[in-house]
Amino acid sequence: MLCIRERYSITVKIVIDAMGGDNAPHEIIKGAIESLSMKGFDMVLVGDEGLIKEELALYPDYDSSRVSILHASEVISNDESPVFALRRKKDSSTVKGISLVKGDLDSAFISAGSTGATLAGGLFIAGRLPGIDRPSLAVAIPAAKGGHFLLIDNGANVDCSVENLVQFAQMGSIYTECVFGTQSPKVGLVNNGAEAHKGCKLTKEAYEELQKLESINFTGNVEPRYLFSGQVDVAVCDGFVGNSILKCSEGLGMMIFSELKGTLRTGGILTKIGALLVKKKLYTLKSMFNYEEYGGAPFLGVNANIIKIHGSSKSSSVYHAVKQAQRMIENRIVEKISDKLTQNVQQTNN
Amino acid sequence: MLCIRERYSITVKIVIDAMGGDNAPHEIIKGAIESLSMKGFDMVLVGDEGLIKEELALYPDYDSSRVSILHASEVISNDESPVFALRRKKDSSTVKGISLVKGDLDSAFISAGSTGATLAGGLFIAGRLPGIDRPSLAVAIPAAKGGHFLLIDNGANVDCSVENLVQFAQMGSIYTECVFGTQSPKVGLVNNGAEAHKGCKLTKEAYEELQKLESINFTGNVEPRYLFSGQVDVAVCDGFVGNSILKCSEGLGMMIFSELKGTLRTGGILTKIGALLVKKKLYTLKSMFNYEEYGGAPFLGVNANIIKIHGSSKSSSVYHAVKQAQRMIENRIVEKISDKLTQNVQQTNN
Repeated sequence: MLCIRERYSITVKIVIDAMGGDNAPHEIIKGAIESLSMKGFDMVLVGDEGLIKEELALYPDYDSSRVSILHASEVISNDESPVFALRRKKDSSTVKGISLVKGDLDSAFISAGSTGATLAGGLFIAGRLPGIDRPSLAVAIPAAKGGHFLLIDNGANVDCSVENLVQFAQMGSIYTECVFGTQSPKVGLVNNGAEAHKGCKLTKEAYEELQKLESINFTGNVEPRYLFSGQVDVAVCDGFVGNSILKCSEGLGMMIFSELKGTLRTGGILTKIGALLVKKKLYTLKSMFNYEEYGGAPFLGVNANIIKIHGSSKSSSVYHAVKQAQRMIENRIVEKISDKLTQNVQQTNN
Repeated sequence: MLCIRERYSITVKIVIDAMGGDNAPHEIIKGAIESLSMKGFDMVLVGDEGLIKEELALYPDYDSSRVSILHASEVISNDESPVFALRRKKDSSTVKGISLVKGDLDSAFISAGSTGATLAGGLFIAGRLPGIDRPSLAVAIPAAKGGHFLLIDNGANVDCSVENLVQFAQMGSIYTECVFGTQSPKVGLVNNGAEAHKGCKLTKEAYEELQKLESINFTGNVEPRYLFSGQVDVAVCDGFVGNSILKCSEGLGMMIFSELKGTLRTGGILTKIGALLVKKKLYTLKSMFNYEEYGGAPFLGVNANIIKIHGSSKSSSVYHAVKQAQRMIENRIVEKISDKLTQNVQQTNN
């Protein structure tokens, strides 16, 4: 079946920051080339033309008609002040890449580079959508039985208002419905107790407002403990708490698998034989906790499709992010968020 | 070697809420009796005398000269408003138990009952220590290689000021040094980045103040990811974030072990043989994540030794909490916190 873009011969354009991340440009371009096995889009690689060409030479058989290069002589590093770097480095892959996708909703920008610069670029170059006070970084986190939940915000906004959380809930719901195909996603407010009266000042007030929203399926408070058993599809919180949950689960997951390895290695001969026999299954389980298979973190609420992938991303993260970018474009995420949130503004004004 | 209490024949008194928690009174009293294998204290069981006597009858050989019963006809449940219940149920095990240990620093109260009521009891019956604005609930969480870190606050104070965090840091440092014997414990501020300028309004300001404190070994910001690798001994945060980290790690830990079991169970015959061979090692690893072995959560900053154990506590949690209570008494935690924090008040006044 042809997708809408193909039916109307609209060219979907995936723009990839070839210079961002610890493994750039090699792994990024490797992933970009691997993703060409998927159809329906052209690709722009942004970065140092010489370096990109050197990398591309490693893949003599790729379909060069689908790939173009946008030269950018500068790179913004993690150590730089994002806003300052954005102003100063006009010829960076971040600035040129985001400028290319700004307002063009048939395109998407993917970067493993500085998170701060990507967010600042989204905000100042692409711009906020009407009705959005604070664009938000969301991320899908693995849960039991192969499931996952969308955590929003996961670090873009560390100090939040009630209105911010309400907007995160709406954006998270739209994204989950469109990109993961979940009908009427269950939206929970991350809180330190399930009861309505529980929480800090912010969550108590946000609970009241979320309850009034008819456009989402708000299921009340969710304790972080139950996030991993799949109690909700979307978990709403401020970026400080979201970042704590994300980092805590990454850290604990790594620690458990490392201890598991150590425990099995130090056992007797029978344990070692047993460990060899279960090895494959353990790897399957470990890959379940590979967040990157769920794609990168979409930056929602700006006038562009922007996906931030992990700084340590390898080619497979790029591949999955390209898949995710296609779904975001195909499902018109930006338009849907814009329509829904503009309605809110109009209702408030009437 | 005799401990100080024994040398001077001071009777240490461990007061246990026999009615609190999902498995009370059976598991609570079982744990209390098991803990009598340790020397150096007498025990008071608070609760329904008839029920307690029935349970005690199951252990015909216990040293009854060390155990007395304080009858309490009421129990405060989790569903009640803590402060209201505390006022109304004067004959509850919580009210009578805390009243018994108030100001008597050779005693400690242990409860698996309502957290809210235990905290409110600590606050309103035992009372705050001078120099403490908000008493705080701390908890030790397992980290890599058999280590652990003390998370403070883990839910008693969901909205915090900079002063609160500074006091948590001091109390956490004293507790870790005295109870775990860690020399000059590394105190970190939980934050969404390691750099000094990172964080939300609260953590940015708290960083400045913590840096000035000479009485603790402040090592800067710590990202939740590195808590589990043992980067710090004490992790300071507001109770909302602390509770999120605690619940998140409990939930993720449970989920990983359950998935591991499922993965090994659904494998082929070789995986099943392997699973049998590594089973014992996996249980060892799982028990490493048994938070209860680290004792319960001490409520620091009140004029009494109070330990809250999990609502689902079994006998072993009670045993470990009794051990922890002895260490708290022996090491004069309450006096040390009082002395240190009073100094702060005096310095501020001069």
